[in-house]
Amino acid sequence: MERKILLTDCPDAQGLIAKITNICYKHQLNIIHNNEYVDHSTGQFFMRTELDGIFNDDTFLMDIDQALPAGSRRNLVNTNRRKRIVIMVTKESHCLGDILMKAYDGSLDVEISAVIGNHNTLAALTEKFDIPFHFVNHEGLEREQHEDKVVDIIDSYAPDYIVLAKFMRVLTPNFVARYPHKIINIHHSFLPAFIGARPYHQAYHRGVKIIGATAHFVTNDLDEGPIIDQNVKHVDHTFSAEDMVKAGRDVEKTVLSNALSQVVEDKVFVYGNKTVIL
Amino acid sequence: MERKILLTDCPDAQGLIAKITNICYKHQLNIIHNNEYVDHSTGQFFMRTELDGIFNDDTFLMDIDQALPAGSRRNLVNTNRRKRIVIMVTKESHCLGDILMKAYDGSLDVEISAVIGNHNTLAALTEKFDIPFHFVNHEGLEREQHEDKVVDIIDSYAPDYIVLAKFMRVLTPNFVARYPHKIINIHHSFLPAFIGARPYHQAYHRGVKIIGATAHFVTNDLDEGPIIDQNVKHVDHTFSAEDMVKAGRDVEKTVLSNALSQVVEDKVFVYGNKTVIL
Amino acid sequence: MERKILLTDCPDAQGLIAKITNICYKHQLNIIHNNEYVDHSTGQFFMRTELDGIFNDDTFLMDIDQALPAGSRRNLVNTNRRKRIVIMVTKESHCLGDILMKAYDGSLDVEISAVIGNHNTLAALTEKFDIPFHFVNHEGLEREQHEDKVVDIIDSYAPDYIVLAKFMRVLTPNFVARYPHKIINIHHSFLPAFIGARPYHQAYHRGVKIIGATAHFVTNDLDEGPIIDQNVKHVDHTFSAEDMVKAGRDVEKTVLSNALSQVVEDKVFVYGNKTVIL
Amino acid sequence: MERKILLTDCPDAQGLIAKITNICYKHQLNIIHNNEYVDHSTGQFFMRTELDGIFNDDTFLMDIDQALPAGSRRNLVNTNRRKRIVIMVTKESHCLGDILMKAYDGSLDVEISAVIGNHNTLAALTEKFDIPFHFVNHEGLEREQHEDKVVDIIDSYAPDYIVLAKFMRVLTPNFVARYPHKIINIHHSFLPAFIGARPYHQAYHRGVKIIGATAHFVTNDLDEGPIIDQNVKHVDHTFSAEDMVKAGRDVEKTVLSNALSQVVEDKVFVYGNKTVIL
Repeated sequence: MERKILLTDCPDAQGLIAKITNICYKHQLNIIHNNEYVDHSTGQFFMRTELDGIFNDDTFLMDIDQALPAGSRRNLVNTNRRKRIVIMVTKESHCLGDILMKAYDGSLDVEISAVIGNHNTLAALTEKFDIPFHFVNHEGLEREQHEDKVVDIIDSYAPDYIVLAKFMRVLTPNFVARYPHKIINIHHSFLPAFIGARPYHQAYHRGVKIIGATAHFVTNDLDEGPIIDQNVKHVDHTFSAEDMVKAGRDVEKTVLSNALSQVVEDKVFVYGNKTVIL
Repeated sequence: MERKILLTDCPDAQGLIAKITNICYKHQLNIIHNNEYVDHSTGQFFMRTELDGIFNDDTFLMDIDQALPAGSRRNLVNTNRRKRIVIMVTKESHCLGDILMKAYDGSLDVEISAVIGNHNTLAALTEKFDIPFHFVNHEGLEREQHEDKVVDIIDSYAPDYIVLAKFMRVLTPNFVARYPHKIINIHHSFLPAFIGARPYHQAYHRGVKIIGATAHFVTNDLDEGPIIDQNVKHVDHTFSAEDMVKAGRDVEKTVLSNALSQVVEDKVFVYGNKTVIL
Repeated sequence: MERKILLTDCPDAQGLIAKITNICYKHQLNIIHNNEYVDHSTGQFFMRTELDGIFNDDTFLMDIDQALPAGSRRNLVNTNRRKRIVIMVTKESHCLGDILMKAYDGSLDVEISAVIGNHNTLAALTEKFDIPFHFVNHEGLEREQHEDKVVDIIDSYAPDYIVLAKFMRVLTPNFVARYPHKIINIHHSFLPAFIGARPYHQAYHRGVKIIGATAHFVTNDLDEGPIIDQNVKHVDHTFSAEDMVKAGRDVEKTVLSNALSQVVEDKVFVYGNKTVIL
Repeated sequence: MERKILLTDCPDAQGLIAKITNICYKHQLNIIHNNEYVDHSTGQFFMRTELDGIFNDDTFLMDIDQALPAGSRRNLVNTNRRKRIVIMVTKESHCLGDILMKAYDGSLDVEISAVIGNHNTLAALTEKFDIPFHFVNHEGLEREQHEDKVVDIIDSYAPDYIVLAKFMRVLTPNFVARYPHKIINIHHSFLPAFIGARPYHQAYHRGVKIIGATAHFVTNDLDEGPIIDQNVKHVDHTFSAEDMVKAGRDVEKTVLSNALSQVVEDKVFVYGNKTVIL
């Protein structure tokens, strides 16, 4: 008995749920959880089916492929293999620390392959958890040169996802294009408010009464990628910009961990510039 | 073309989703939204299927009945008919007012048949909205006598649901038994904290930092019925018990309206002492 | 015995609290609540002092004026007089309805002098509460002509505040300048996200996971005035733009009522483009 | 120039703020932040005054003592010395981990003197941060014997506070009495709901739609001590008891860290069974 997850993402058509669930039934696979969603504005169908049983992947997927319309994407994910991530950081420790701790105690089901920093600040923290830290200094390097070094390290680990845990440099289109829908960033504002640099200082000057954080997939448009999770915290006039920075940390780390958890559990579909989370 | 909702609630079995969705497909009914849930601890299956098409209710339900295991409940709800409610009140206006306003502007899809008060306080407000108000004074009457009068009025309207919008009297088992899973109450605490009378005063004396409200179906155990919705609000040491009463009003009315909205959209299954909301 | 509120807003200086509270003590005025705040980045001092006693306003304020540095603003507010508001609306009823209901049952301590609509849609609702409704049609009029008519009506009531309860037209600088820090608007996004028109549709296309509302004083920069209150609500991929509009209503009305409540209780200081709420 | 905090807690009297702030002014101490609160139901006055200047503690406090009525408590806290804490744990790592991480990166201003566990599970995690871990096995010992060993270790560090970070044993009255208002516990429910053991399992069986956590000072009445902070998280019917346990972790750790932060910044007054947080 194994557990696998069938992910289906295709143009909507009559009888899709019936066809897919029939195939599961025919293959004697038990549906543990099933969630589906149709975006009626665009006519796109999404389904996530957790299955228990004895799988013959080839025949099962052959049947599924015959049932789905043209232009479908489907994937059968084995839940036994833990997802591998590489984390990129600069100097701030709270998001990295939260992921390290949750991976350590098992509440986040990931294998942290390595941490890469453009500063050396977080090497000591990372190494406490027996995880390799790579310091790739960006000083004196062209942006592309720096990224080339980072890419070499990332690719040596073949990670499923790259997590920007307060990595404070803008990535080039080349870098982003190399890892489509595989780079997850935490932005320290409730996007699309306060795009760009120093969002808490922007928030302070605007006099807002809530601050927030956004976890999103990285695309070439700065802070414009598909949003995975967002949350906020109330502030008031007594908060300086620095107080907002401090108050925002718990929101940032919780939003990033939560987004990452949903991604590695294969619950997140990217569709255009949005996410569907089943 | 009509829209109907098929509600299914039965012991879990292999192939249920496939069977039900096949029948929909065979009857050329298009699935607009589908949500299902299996409680694996008890092996109970729940499904809510919104369907568009031309319905032959008899043949469709005959097929469904043959597909379902023994002990199943199923219901095919016509979305054309607006649900009728009777509201019971005492003196406080905020929950009644919110429902009146939302029914008036269409954001809550109900028909308010009547309001019944054991005080006359809210007659004027009710009548502003051209809804009959029945004042049934409880003074000088035995509890059963009072309820008999209320029952006569309720039954004359044949409502789908009875909403206790800050009705401050305890109902007898006889009354409750007459309307199983049809009476919705708002309790002014985040149950099970502060069961019983004057929960804000209890909260004040306990020194809590959050207050809340709970909408639930009424059963014979005081404040113990299946919970539909809950929400909270932060308070601090500056709040007197009266300040908590005032601060709680927005939470109470929002929780009650939200619960009522989910109930009248046929999203709420009662299962044992819990709700499943699809 | 009366209750009055002393509001002080001045450059910070050593001993300010001591001086002001000494004067209160000397005049035998009892401090019921006192809140102060110093913005250390700009050196501005704010204090709100609720006082009980027998007031000789002239001698008390003469003492206060001597104690305060140059450039100070102070105000002694009589809590006996209920603040008067005029509400401006277009077609949506939820914010108007909430204010009408809260003024009716006393949970919002205001006198609604009149409602002005550029459509006639909300006349019937307003008049249920025996409040005059003025329909000022904007069709066929220049913007200034329309506003002139509105100004005449507003000024005939001499309100303390003008509340834009989903009034969907942009006001001219002339209009805004006439009522500095007296116009309160509800914007249906968590500003500064989604400035301008159709914010829920913008939010839908951006794929956000939270929507929100912002109550702010109106200045000449569209949606850029000092923020009084903000709140948010979680949404997900199943929300259409219309669902977001509907889901946002409870947030909008709660944020606007809450902001208005703080303003009429004289808790809100405007300072530059921000508010200090004591 | 030093910064100190004057904490005053006494029966209310006319002119108290004036007297205290006058004394600060006379001693040329600059008030950086001042917060006061009067509980009018009991006539108790609380004030927290952050002061900058050159302090002569003896003469300053002598003046303060003469100004305050009988039965007053006052304290002048030096902000230079970081508070020391001892943390007690059992097996769960998330609350300990959050405090370790925040102390490590400076976002929580405490010195962790030691961690004491009745299991050895968290020794490795603690020692990563170069903090002594004491394993005091409770097996085969009377409760008092076990506590005697713990007391010896605690007292050897002379901590300001003892933090129960998911310490799963009930403490005896003797132990509690030894550290009045110095023991801070995190309880994994929004008290007073679900007092006692296995609150998430209680919550699951009750079918609640929110779960929460409460940080409180420990007194002899189980889970009845003064509440410092509370927060909640929404859940739904899909959450098993184990899912609630997992979902609650982020709430628990955030509430405990936040409470601890307020306590070590000397913002929390205990008054009867409540807290006043200034």
